[in-house]
Amino acid sequence: MGLFSRDIKTLNDLFVHTLRDIYYAEKQIVKALPEMIEKASDPGLKRGFKTHLDETQNHVARLEEVFRMHGVEAKGIDCPAIDGIIEETDDIAGEVADKKVMDAALIAAAQAVEHYEMTRYGSLIAWAKQLGRNDCAAVLQRTLDEEKATDKKLTQMAESAVNLRAAS
Amino acid sequence: MGLFSRDIKTLNDLFVHTLRDIYYAEKQIVKALPEMIEKASDPGLKRGFKTHLDETQNHVARLEEVFRMHGVEAKGIDCPAIDGIIEETDDIAGEVADKKVMDAALIAAAQAVEHYEMTRYGSLIAWAKQLGRNDCAAVLQRTLDEEKATDKKLTQMAESAVNLRAAS
Repeated sequence: MGLFSRDIKTLNDLFVHTLRDIYYAEKQIVKALPEMIEKASDPGLKRGFKTHLDETQNHVARLEEVFRMHGVEAKGIDCPAIDGIIEETDDIAGEVADKKVMDAALIAAAQAVEHYEMTRYGSLIAWAKQLGRNDCAAVLQRTLDEEKATDKKLTQMAESAVNLRAAS
Repeated sequence: MGLFSRDIKTLNDLFVHTLRDIYYAEKQIVKALPEMIEKASDPGLKRGFKTHLDETQNHVARLEEVFRMHGVEAKGIDCPAIDGIIEETDDIAGEVADKKVMDAALIAAAQAVEHYEMTRYGSLIAWAKQLGRNDCAAVLQRTLDEEKATDKKLTQMAESAVNLRAAS
């Protein structure tokens, strides 16, 4: 979308714009996760990232379902936020010299991604309800619930073992 | 810090690196908020952003306190994540043509910022505790509590009035 073209005139426009933003973001996450899986040493973390890659592919499909339900074209738009978050993940992964510290850094990076998604899905669900699209809200809510569960699992992994090993 | 210089060898290095990341981020938020205050139409939202600007200045000061407590130099490092999130805020603000829709977009943008901060402070607090720095963790926790409260207030504002007006 053209910068300063003022294409967003209604809440529906904002909803569709943000759907396209998170659609792009989910696809970037699908591309970024294999490297995180490769870099993780802790078997539980590696497994957790693999499961999340499957989930993320499913989130992309669910967004396509929402686009269809809402009668708009499924397409992504640039999302500088997720690009920045992933760039920072790459930067930090390039700077960590120790495997155990790397796992702690990877968890923090993944949680930054999760939080970005949680906030976007939260806004989308609120707007969908306001627009009378409870059907779209319900589909988006399933993804939000999974993102929250992943974030919680990452916290547990960090606090139960990964941070302890990183400090040793 | 130099890219691929592998300067992060310990959990303490990762803690200091991330402190510097969020220090830069908080300072960028201080710079970004005045424009969000100006663009907001809803008086409650405008007031909320003003309060948050005061809080954010206080978060910067608190981080300087943590740097001092931990005996390291207070300095920022590039944080592509917050740069991307703020860039996206500017982009969206430039694309919205309607004042009421703008308020809904500004709330979503502010919540993306809050969530980024929440995840970074969450990691920092866990690492500080692991490093035996409960004193630093306690200072960081006060900021995290304020970020969470701001995020909650923004959700309430969106759901109670702003989204309704944006849809009308």
